[in-house]
Amino acid sequence: MMKAILVIGDGMADRPLRELGGRTPLEAAHKLSLNQIAKTGICGIMDIISPGVIPGSDTATLALLGYDALEVYTGRGAFEAVGSGIDVSPRDVAFRCNFATVDDDLVVLDRRAGRIVNEDASKLAQSLQKIKLEKHPKVDFLFKNTIQHRAALVIRKPRPSSAVSDSDPGKIGEKVLKIKPLDSSQKAELTTKILRELTLKFHKVLKQHPINKMRVERGLPPANIILCRGAGTIPNIKPLPEKYGLTSACVAASSLIRGVCKVAGMKLIDVKGATGTPQTDFMAKAKATIKTLKTNDFVLLHVKATDVAGHDGNIKQKIELIEKIDAMLDYILNNIDSDLTYMAVTADHTTSSNTKNHEGDSVPIAVTGPYVRRDDVKQYDERTCAKGGLNRIRGMDIMPILINLIGKAKKFGA
Amino acid sequence: MMKAILVIGDGMADRPLRELGGRTPLEAAHKLSLNQIAKTGICGIMDIISPGVIPGSDTATLALLGYDALEVYTGRGAFEAVGSGIDVSPRDVAFRCNFATVDDDLVVLDRRAGRIVNEDASKLAQSLQKIKLEKHPKVDFLFKNTIQHRAALVIRKPRPSSAVSDSDPGKIGEKVLKIKPLDSSQKAELTTKILRELTLKFHKVLKQHPINKMRVERGLPPANIILCRGAGTIPNIKPLPEKYGLTSACVAASSLIRGVCKVAGMKLIDVKGATGTPQTDFMAKAKATIKTLKTNDFVLLHVKATDVAGHDGNIKQKIELIEKIDAMLDYILNNIDSDLTYMAVTADHTTSSNTKNHEGDSVPIAVTGPYVRRDDVKQYDERTCAKGGLNRIRGMDIMPILINLIGKAKKFGA
Repeated sequence: MMKAILVIGDGMADRPLRELGGRTPLEAAHKLSLNQIAKTGICGIMDIISPGVIPGSDTATLALLGYDALEVYTGRGAFEAVGSGIDVSPRDVAFRCNFATVDDDLVVLDRRAGRIVNEDASKLAQSLQKIKLEKHPKVDFLFKNTIQHRAALVIRKPRPSSAVSDSDPGKIGEKVLKIKPLDSSQKAELTTKILRELTLKFHKVLKQHPINKMRVERGLPPANIILCRGAGTIPNIKPLPEKYGLTSACVAASSLIRGVCKVAGMKLIDVKGATGTPQTDFMAKAKATIKTLKTNDFVLLHVKATDVAGHDGNIKQKIELIEKIDAMLDYILNNIDSDLTYMAVTADHTTSSNTKNHEGDSVPIAVTGPYVRRDDVKQYDERTCAKGGLNRIRGMDIMPILINLIGKAKKFGA
Repeated sequence: MMKAILVIGDGMADRPLRELGGRTPLEAAHKLSLNQIAKTGICGIMDIISPGVIPGSDTATLALLGYDALEVYTGRGAFEAVGSGIDVSPRDVAFRCNFATVDDDLVVLDRRAGRIVNEDASKLAQSLQKIKLEKHPKVDFLFKNTIQHRAALVIRKPRPSSAVSDSDPGKIGEKVLKIKPLDSSQKAELTTKILRELTLKFHKVLKQHPINKMRVERGLPPANIILCRGAGTIPNIKPLPEKYGLTSACVAASSLIRGVCKVAGMKLIDVKGATGTPQTDFMAKAKATIKTLKTNDFVLLHVKATDVAGHDGNIKQKIELIEKIDAMLDYILNNIDSDLTYMAVTADHTTSSNTKNHEGDSVPIAVTGPYVRRDDVKQYDERTCAKGGLNRIRGMDIMPILINLIGKAKKFGA
């Protein structure tokens, strides 16, 4: 039985940087395994959605799993919540949340509350979950922290609407946004009121919380507000086992990615030491991938760390993390049956270390395995891969390509 | 603030020509600036609509502005009319017209009446606008000449239909076509009758017009008929400022291009000496572009001349005009802030100097600017660009690519 691995370095692609003499971090990194995959494989570039369009990590993962994100995407919230272990039903509305720091005028000082550690965030989340709303006593909500400053909020009852705006202004120096209904339905009106009351109540509880008092004493930014964005429901998609007739699992720490994979019907593998941060245990993920592949046709291996370094504009760290991905791939290459395994390596989007944001530039892709049409590309990076045999494809093409290579594709026509 | 310029050489791409030893005019031209843009940029080829599909200049410009022309295109007439300064309302039906020369049997001898000069066409148009129809006295129409033999006709009242066929046979040696309704509606029936009467009345007035008598005396073909084609209404498209959140302007003389740009919500810049002919003032357009860029995020710079030379099969002139575009680009390159400006250079379609028509072959594209992934292409032409880092994209991709580079793209997803 043939198998496939899809390795995603989150935000691993970049633009040429002056600090690197016009090279990208991938071009500057020392990366024997990535180059080995390019050398033995077929390479190309890939527009995750379409040229110039900036993907989020959620829409990108949907696309990389073969879904038309433009058609099926219903917001990030539900994925984040599912990925954090909350059981989201089709009627629930979920939000992606941040623990953040505001001043007394509700101006955002730090959108990530100093990338608060999981332990602090857990204790704060436990307090928030206990809150009762005075104006809306029948509200049923779930609040759960995931990694660092990230969290998910799910509104269950009364029957909510996803037609509500964000409270997260998306940048520091701006005031927390007033949540507004996005349509004229009663449901949107009510959900808006509930969210406004929750936001104020959360703020009140967080301000006085012992954890935050301790953070301030230590010189750390207090996590004194919850910013919400990306109201969404669970999208209605055909799960991978049904879509492609395969068993599949995901090795990822990021709750957003886990959420997308779970909604796509994949098993979620828990890996000790995999944290979704630059301190993640790369080798533990490599070993988990090899182990998981024994009982699955397809494994998605996702590494969040490179994206974090890009958002921080930390070029040196991004290069180091690419080199750690390279070491992780070395283990995988040495432990797969190369006669029976296809492996694709890509990024879910470009994260520019210059703009510190996701960008719509294409990403490199290399696919290796026993019967690929090997080209003469010998290095894995944005520009060299562009000369490869895959030319330029779309994000939603890669899954059908892998399914075809492992012999699981069904003929269209007769 | 980053800015973008899109330079379009109309019909600048070509096929390899025997007269040039198998080279294209772009390959044969001396073009330091175009090559400089290729050298410092990322290159590729582009299918304006899709491979093999022959675009018109209107559908091409729609695509290059990021619209799905297959979805939004409603005929050329309305663009030509809008571009000529006629205020077209959503209920009007507009036609693209030619002053042409026919014999007594209405066989077309010259589809462009010897590329009649603007002065003659203006005087003829003034006479035609005064016509009253005997059978349809309540008809409200507008007729306006644009550049040379080109003109626009708009039917306002009674409420017209765009479901009518062309009178223009599209080639010489054929008879003027009898206009027919294209559906069974009363409106189409009535519009057909009005157009037939207008065509005959126009012919009658033009035959006896002093301008035409003078033209014949001078040995010039008389502009004795108006050929209509491309009945259309104004398309319903989201204007650029709304679609991409940017201020934009167009430096173009061609009324068709101006019309598309105006419908797309762009400002139209008038440039003295810019004529839409091979005699246009290239440097005036270059200077206008630099000036316009100071107060706009995006400027489209369009040069019609290369297409005219291609349609005439005048290879020598086409090469000379490419070299004038090159000089125009030299001025632009020397006067932009290269740290803050992205520039894309392309053609809106291939015009074969051999077939003298638009063709569906792809066009070269090069994008230069501070953070593009520069490739190793060093010459700007159809075949060298095909080896570049953009590989093969679609016409409607280039605008999202530029918007992404100048930091105006919105993330899809989270």
